[in-house]
Amino acid sequence: MKSELVSGLKLENLPTPALLLDMSNLEYNINLLADFFRDKPCDIRPHMKGHKNLTIAHMQIDRGAIGVTCAKTSEAEVMVNGGIKDILIANQVIESGKINLLAELARRADIKVAVDSYQNCENLSRIAVEHGVTIGVLVEMDIGLGRCGVKSFDEGINLVQEIQKLDNLEFRGVMGYEGPFRDKTQSEKSDMVKESLSRVVQLKRRIEQENIQVEIVSCGSTGTWDITGNYPEITEIQAGTYPLMEVPYLEDGLPFKSALSVLATVISKSHDKLILDCGLKAVTDDQGIPKLMDYDSPIVGINEEHSIVEIDHETEKLEIGDKIRILPAHSCTTVNLYDYYCCLRNNEVVDIWQVHARGMVT
Amino acid sequence: MKSELVSGLKLENLPTPALLLDMSNLEYNINLLADFFRDKPCDIRPHMKGHKNLTIAHMQIDRGAIGVTCAKTSEAEVMVNGGIKDILIANQVIESGKINLLAELARRADIKVAVDSYQNCENLSRIAVEHGVTIGVLVEMDIGLGRCGVKSFDEGINLVQEIQKLDNLEFRGVMGYEGPFRDKTQSEKSDMVKESLSRVVQLKRRIEQENIQVEIVSCGSTGTWDITGNYPEITEIQAGTYPLMEVPYLEDGLPFKSALSVLATVISKSHDKLILDCGLKAVTDDQGIPKLMDYDSPIVGINEEHSIVEIDHETEKLEIGDKIRILPAHSCTTVNLYDYYCCLRNNEVVDIWQVHARGMVT
Repeated sequence: MKSELVSGLKLENLPTPALLLDMSNLEYNINLLADFFRDKPCDIRPHMKGHKNLTIAHMQIDRGAIGVTCAKTSEAEVMVNGGIKDILIANQVIESGKINLLAELARRADIKVAVDSYQNCENLSRIAVEHGVTIGVLVEMDIGLGRCGVKSFDEGINLVQEIQKLDNLEFRGVMGYEGPFRDKTQSEKSDMVKESLSRVVQLKRRIEQENIQVEIVSCGSTGTWDITGNYPEITEIQAGTYPLMEVPYLEDGLPFKSALSVLATVISKSHDKLILDCGLKAVTDDQGIPKLMDYDSPIVGINEEHSIVEIDHETEKLEIGDKIRILPAHSCTTVNLYDYYCCLRNNEVVDIWQVHARGMVT
Repeated sequence: MKSELVSGLKLENLPTPALLLDMSNLEYNINLLADFFRDKPCDIRPHMKGHKNLTIAHMQIDRGAIGVTCAKTSEAEVMVNGGIKDILIANQVIESGKINLLAELARRADIKVAVDSYQNCENLSRIAVEHGVTIGVLVEMDIGLGRCGVKSFDEGINLVQEIQKLDNLEFRGVMGYEGPFRDKTQSEKSDMVKESLSRVVQLKRRIEQENIQVEIVSCGSTGTWDITGNYPEITEIQAGTYPLMEVPYLEDGLPFKSALSVLATVISKSHDKLILDCGLKAVTDDQGIPKLMDYDSPIVGINEEHSIVEIDHETEKLEIGDKIRILPAHSCTTVNLYDYYCCLRNNEVVDIWQVHARGMVT
């Protein structure tokens, strides 16, 4: 949207629900992580699946990030088309159509993708040869999540050795996700993260013992940023949520500020409840119930099109038509519901940014 | 998408996750409901918040539906721009910007909106006068859900009497939502639905005792279609899910067929689990965990980008790259994640339909 269209747009006039982005807090978060890692051996390769936005990705890169992490091939396409040159798809890309797209993207960017099976590597190699490009691969290890990834060191080393024999496929390193460990104490979490990381680092060393270079060891999330980012031999972290944040991470006491909220309107009121025009199509509950930003009154229910707030002494003064801000409990799935961010500075609307990769599920 | 582009598109080549629509089952469901209501006093005003698609809405109208129900003003705009002439927004429209849009839509369609407060009615009237149009209103009664709606008959009658005094606002009837009652037996459900409906019908009669005509009594959902559709004095039902269906309604034994599924690919496999490329951004879990379409193996976890299937004797033969179909547990929130339906007949891709009202949250 052109800035002249935005200049008259007031926060109180935005149609609700609206996805709000606090620019100062966004910048604070990006700077905080960038400053922490500036003189450290570990790099930042932020995951873009949360913000799904090119402007934020470029802000992160301008502040030192080496590239971006994507979950999906279609997200990588958006990023490469938006000028990002260094991409890790932290996921298995299996379908031939998607691998063809990857190969095309590899003409314009340094493309790396996670692998955990020989059959997939063979397809990647065949299609890379057809396109005359090289695709980088990271061997994913399951370090505790029970999801994708090789399950043992032997399985990992065997896969790396097979990759070495395949044309136009370049083994670049290893990857693992140590998990969120959200229900653990800080001390328990730290022990569990380090235990997980030790496995991916051990795989790396075992591969090196075979005289194969391991350039990248990629792990990490916003929840484990400082533990993983300080762990020896981890070369990059994939933290994704820290620019925007969300309720569980805020409650974990992470040092990042809340930059994302959803503006809602009170559309009905009874003696004990406020009904907001913001349901599951506007703020998700898959990581818990969202919270109000300026009030302690709990959201006691969230249906498809409505949120229900229990009135207390603070919220009893709110009337039909009043606006209220909600903090998402899961920013990644919430942002994906919107086509635009409404960007605020000092609570004034200063810009509208597209959610460039919204709905890029493939 | 032009049909010549689709003609070569094979189900097995669709990039996954893909939203699949079985055209025969869609038609079966629309016909079944239409046939049931053809000679009954109750009309069908299907809710479009589930399918969010103009083509399906027009199919429903061609088979006798009197118009559509919307949840949001922006959905109503899509419907009116797509040629639908009779619209109920079964929700309170509070913000002035949205009411201005409603008033504009009222030039091209018969627009009705739910109300439960005098202040809202006054704003609707003022803006309708400014635009020189008439907006219809239905007084919503809370008949058990504890959400929007007047809470008593007296409150409802008072509101109707106030509406009678307001310019350019036309009282058209009453509305209530009797709830899904999904955890109840059929007999318990039937009793509870009838108890709820008796309240909205009682409100209607009390209003008529004031010599005010009540043209519309609008209730109902897919879960209560036959109970509500046969209940005396209910004039229309708002069933929305029946064209597509979803797991809980299928398990309830409703006579409609499953027309919606999500195509996913096996991207990783261990000795006991299959990992699919379909997470919460491609199929939602807010009404329970989705199920596989052709296998009994349970989906035991659904993360943001992955589903995890426990392998049994049926699924152990599936390999990385194989495709598998998932039945959503909530079609409304799942469809809203996609820009397109891939339409199938006899498992051949025959068309691509836009999800016209995807992301219309305001």
